Amino acid sequence: MTIRAAVMTELGQIEIQDHPEPVPAPHEAAVRVRAVGVCGSDTAYFTVGRIGDWVVDGPIVLGHEVSGEVVGVGEEVTSVAVGDRVAIEPGTPCRNCRECMAGRYHLCPDLAFLATPPYDGALVEVMTIDARNLHVIPDSMGYEEAALLEPLSVGIWGCRRAGLEPGDDVLVTGAGPVGLLAGAVARAFGAGSVTVTDPSAFRLGLAERMGLGTDTDPDARFDVLLECSGAKGVLAEGLRRLRPAGRAAMIGMPKDELVGLPLSQLTVNELSLSLVHRYNHTWPLAISLVASGRVDVAPLVTHHFPLAETADALLLGKRVTDSVKAVIHPDR
Amino acid sequence: MTIRAAVMTELGQIEIQDHPEPVPAPHEAAVRVRAVGVCGSDTAYFTVGRIGDWVVDGPIVLGHEVSGEVVGVGEEVTSVAVGDRVAIEPGTPCRNCRECMAGRYHLCPDLAFLATPPYDGALVEVMTIDARNLHVIPDSMGYEEAALLEPLSVGIWGCRRAGLEPGDDVLVTGAGPVGLLAGAVARAFGAGSVTVTDPSAFRLGLAERMGLGTDTDPDARFDVLLECSGAKGVLAEGLRRLRPAGRAAMIGMPKDELVGLPLSQLTVNELSLSLVHRYNHTWPLAISLVASGRVDVAPLVTHHFPLAETADALLLGKRVTDSVKAVIHPDR
Amino acid sequence: MTIRAAVMTELGQIEIQDHPEPVPAPHEAAVRVRAVGVCGSDTAYFTVGRIGDWVVDGPIVLGHEVSGEVVGVGEEVTSVAVGDRVAIEPGTPCRNCRECMAGRYHLCPDLAFLATPPYDGALVEVMTIDARNLHVIPDSMGYEEAALLEPLSVGIWGCRRAGLEPGDDVLVTGAGPVGLLAGAVARAFGAGSVTVTDPSAFRLGLAERMGLGTDTDPDARFDVLLECSGAKGVLAEGLRRLRPAGRAAMIGMPKDELVGLPLSQLTVNELSLSLVHRYNHTWPLAISLVASGRVDVAPLVTHHFPLAETADALLLGKRVTDSVKAVIHPDR
Amino acid sequence: MTIRAAVMTELGQIEIQDHPEPVPAPHEAAVRVRAVGVCGSDTAYFTVGRIGDWVVDGPIVLGHEVSGEVVGVGEEVTSVAVGDRVAIEPGTPCRNCRECMAGRYHLCPDLAFLATPPYDGALVEVMTIDARNLHVIPDSMGYEEAALLEPLSVGIWGCRRAGLEPGDDVLVTGAGPVGLLAGAVARAFGAGSVTVTDPSAFRLGLAERMGLGTDTDPDARFDVLLECSGAKGVLAEGLRRLRPAGRAAMIGMPKDELVGLPLSQLTVNELSLSLVHRYNHTWPLAISLVASGRVDVAPLVTHHFPLAETADALLLGKRVTDSVKAVIHPDR
Repeated sequence: MTIRAAVMTELGQIEIQDHPEPVPAPHEAAVRVRAVGVCGSDTAYFTVGRIGDWVVDGPIVLGHEVSGEVVGVGEEVTSVAVGDRVAIEPGTPCRNCRECMAGRYHLCPDLAFLATPPYDGALVEVMTIDARNLHVIPDSMGYEEAALLEPLSVGIWGCRRAGLEPGDDVLVTGAGPVGLLAGAVARAFGAGSVTVTDPSAFRLGLAERMGLGTDTDPDARFDVLLECSGAKGVLAEGLRRLRPAGRAAMIGMPKDELVGLPLSQLTVNELSLSLVHRYNHTWPLAISLVASGRVDVAPLVTHHFPLAETADALLLGKRVTDSVKAVIHPDR
Repeated sequence: MTIRAAVMTELGQIEIQDHPEPVPAPHEAAVRVRAVGVCGSDTAYFTVGRIGDWVVDGPIVLGHEVSGEVVGVGEEVTSVAVGDRVAIEPGTPCRNCRECMAGRYHLCPDLAFLATPPYDGALVEVMTIDARNLHVIPDSMGYEEAALLEPLSVGIWGCRRAGLEPGDDVLVTGAGPVGLLAGAVARAFGAGSVTVTDPSAFRLGLAERMGLGTDTDPDARFDVLLECSGAKGVLAEGLRRLRPAGRAAMIGMPKDELVGLPLSQLTVNELSLSLVHRYNHTWPLAISLVASGRVDVAPLVTHHFPLAETADALLLGKRVTDSVKAVIHPDR
Repeated sequence: MTIRAAVMTELGQIEIQDHPEPVPAPHEAAVRVRAVGVCGSDTAYFTVGRIGDWVVDGPIVLGHEVSGEVVGVGEEVTSVAVGDRVAIEPGTPCRNCRECMAGRYHLCPDLAFLATPPYDGALVEVMTIDARNLHVIPDSMGYEEAALLEPLSVGIWGCRRAGLEPGDDVLVTGAGPVGLLAGAVARAFGAGSVTVTDPSAFRLGLAERMGLGTDTDPDARFDVLLECSGAKGVLAEGLRRLRPAGRAAMIGMPKDELVGLPLSQLTVNELSLSLVHRYNHTWPLAISLVASGRVDVAPLVTHHFPLAETADALLLGKRVTDSVKAVIHPDR
Repeated sequence: MTIRAAVMTELGQIEIQDHPEPVPAPHEAAVRVRAVGVCGSDTAYFTVGRIGDWVVDGPIVLGHEVSGEVVGVGEEVTSVAVGDRVAIEPGTPCRNCRECMAGRYHLCPDLAFLATPPYDGALVEVMTIDARNLHVIPDSMGYEEAALLEPLSVGIWGCRRAGLEPGDDVLVTGAGPVGLLAGAVARAFGAGSVTVTDPSAFRLGLAERMGLGTDTDPDARFDVLLECSGAKGVLAEGLRRLRPAGRAAMIGMPKDELVGLPLSQLTVNELSLSLVHRYNHTWPLAISLVASGRVDVAPLVTHHFPLAETADALLLGKRVTDSVKAVIHPDR
């Protein structure tokens, strides 16, 4: 038996290949992939071939925002069964190191993460993965929503890292998928207010449809900054808008090697800045937020693609201004 | 000029008296009271004359869940103006002691609290209070809702004291006004699930209308317990249903002098228990939660009374089983 | 090859038996045991046969405060080598469950803990254990000190659970080994003051030798209570001596099934109570505190025994009033 | 009656003037100043005339590390009495604003701080100040030690802001007075290890005398960074030496407007950075640490000056390489 896989064979090239259908190891499950969201990191690997120290140096399958249906389980697996509809957490930790034992498995130095070299991702018809990475979703949740639990997890973890407390006035800079979801999470965590900034009127319109505020008062001050743009100067400017004891989380990744921050000037307000790397134990909460209607991820999915059009999907953001999130359906 | 006041002259007796209209001191405002919620503590003072060490030893005006309209301000007041619609925070701290300076003004030993001996409360047509206790409410918010920001504040603070974190599975024992609101707050703070228990089917129905779950699985385990009943044995039983590292907040006040807890047995789960006394800096968030629709306090108000029927209002819970919250309207 | 083991064959009976010398599994080390401290739990198993739900129902080797020398390692072990002098952490977690992955391995439901039924302990000449439980000690540290890192860990974890912050005034009730060490830890963590209470003048003298204060002012109030006696009524009384926002950790295990606490009365001070179960990731810090001289455990060791006198050691506290900690030397 | 005051009349000029002896307001005390430590900020005002937005624009008295003896009290003062030996906390908050009421009085926008324009400092024979800023010191503590409680407070607060936890391995960059004291505090708070870096062998020698380690292993990694140098590039380099989940506090003030940090590269370790502004509620703990011998501030005082030689004292660091802290004695 073979399955189709969208393989990035070289920079900017996707080839649909036939691969042998993978067989789950004793602790693994096999999942028929139903939806894969395209992330900016997928696009970066596809167009530039690297993100920081992670370098693509051979064929790789992209895609790490994934949902699907369990079609096989290894002999030791009891947590899921064939037929379960699942969202997939893309990182597999060692469960043994200092970080794992301290409750920080996302910082595990041996974390195997989908679509991060040298690990393949999910743009395939069937994949296998440690069954403990699977989270069963309720019948009411669609596969597209389930795939978006991954960027939602980034938003959840960003809010946690920022030390967001109920009642905080929150500024979100950058209304891409992660910014919109981080804002929605802040609201679902009891923020006093959530204000989103972005150069795109299209995206600000989406923010408003999701119940978030937009930035109408340049003198407004905030308790928490969620920087989700990665754009030059935005973090520094956002920090300037924080109140005393303000807290910031940097979720968007800056492209410059050095980011200049006016730390002397900010000291009088005694700010805190937390860097954010992926997420830790967020899927159960993400499922609850979406299933209960407290967060609506559906407005983010603006475009759909079959597996054969993976390359188009990866470049959507560069082609279409009024887009947010592309979803690829490997079964189409 | 005189105003009417509902004065508790002796145990179980309310007399409507004419009092001189109060004049605000320089830092105070005068408020025409529009709505006063009846709290269990009002009923306790009315029927028993004491709560713990607080003893009614003379005529007293009850009522501390209050909203109204500003009708006068002292000369130093800039934070509110005549005509503002406001909710009133009932405790006035000294702003000078160790607790106030540590950010815990609710534990100020000199806190002057409405309707707590020797301080009069709000069951009057016009009252004066430190203007810093007033919180302007949006036009969209009714005075009844605004009065209920006080018990909502109890729920907010109980969740904070419990160390509630987004994703926690929460058990609320007791579906009185505070239990229902605490559950609604837990949901609005990102709880993974909220389960309410109560002997009353009427109140459980209200819980479901507010989007909260009811206790259908006796083996379910929880991360957080919000004990809101004060009933004998409920705290101990709730603690037994917590998972390892579970956290509990005792919001309902037990009547017995000593509460027996199976601490040795609970140790293996390393639980934490936090006592809860009123609230600290909760009104701005309470306003945001209600104004944004994240918490709906309206279903709680089951009965209304004019000032003249204050005694009936105070005894509602003892007369009518299917009741939750009585609101008194001093202007009727 | 055989080794000697002190086996509790029935209640109150210790038999020195010859056992086959254990061979380490691939991930284990073999340790020649040099010092074993006697804990109250050892004495309880010896005299009563149970602690809560843990029941001795067959022969068992006691002893879980252990140090020794590595005499063999399994083939996968790289963290220690033959000849290393080590302290032994007695609990081996599964490294896989919800608690382990949340950074709370001490609450792992499958924790294998020395000298806790059904697991044997350390009163043997040579034992094997997961090599990750071994912590290399510096040359300057004696084996007796190293064995006492276990009760020191209880003190460390109790302070952590209490939320002890630098500057806190700390009350320690009970000057047994754990109370004395918890007090020493509180001092080493920057407590503003540490006050110890105990009925025994001998133990209070030890407290003073360790730089701790004794309770000379009945009106003194505290920020933190470390209850280490387990004695009836002491927890309730200690809670009454806390200031507003006070925090308590229950380290001593009460014997009664229900512990009565005056929760209503304590609510006005908004106290918190944390139960304490063993410890989590404390050995590296314990080694640092002792090696640097910030905590001196030596004064606690009042009596020494060879393996053959294990029964006498287990009953020391019941025979000799002016005793604190017995250490058994299996190599004598 | 007149007193002598050392007045900075213009850049680089100190004039000893006769001023009327100040009379305490009802809530104030008058203090005969015994010791004033020279801080880098005093030197900066003296030589450059500004620190960030604080600009000297008229005659000013410098000095904010102060101790002395109470020689008069206003009629409302009960917390201190004539004859008390005291350390002086230099900031007087409004006790009324959002920051004060949140327990962050050091961020009060109206904080009146000694020797910060437009407020005069302590280089006078007698000064008056709010009596609540005075902390009585024990007889065993010298006035010089008491003056150094102010930089010790900076170290305490820096450790608090860094989220220092017992067991953390701590890197202190910069062995000036604040760096040395921050390192001593970290040790007194239970740090697993404290490593100090500085270009000056003299200062590293002091660090070793204070029981702190020096940086012998370039590959050593740390949990906490206390950046105390303000020197270019040191913060970025220190951040690179942190372990996953590392935390940093910036205590030294960088001179450049923008500080470049390699945030993308650091993200994989999910670091946190906290800015530090003065201190909050640190004097009682500072007194306890010094009085108990857990922190020894004496080695820092390398030079002494009478009031008349204030200018020399202010320039000590620029003249004498092997110096740390100058103390001025206004009564000499």
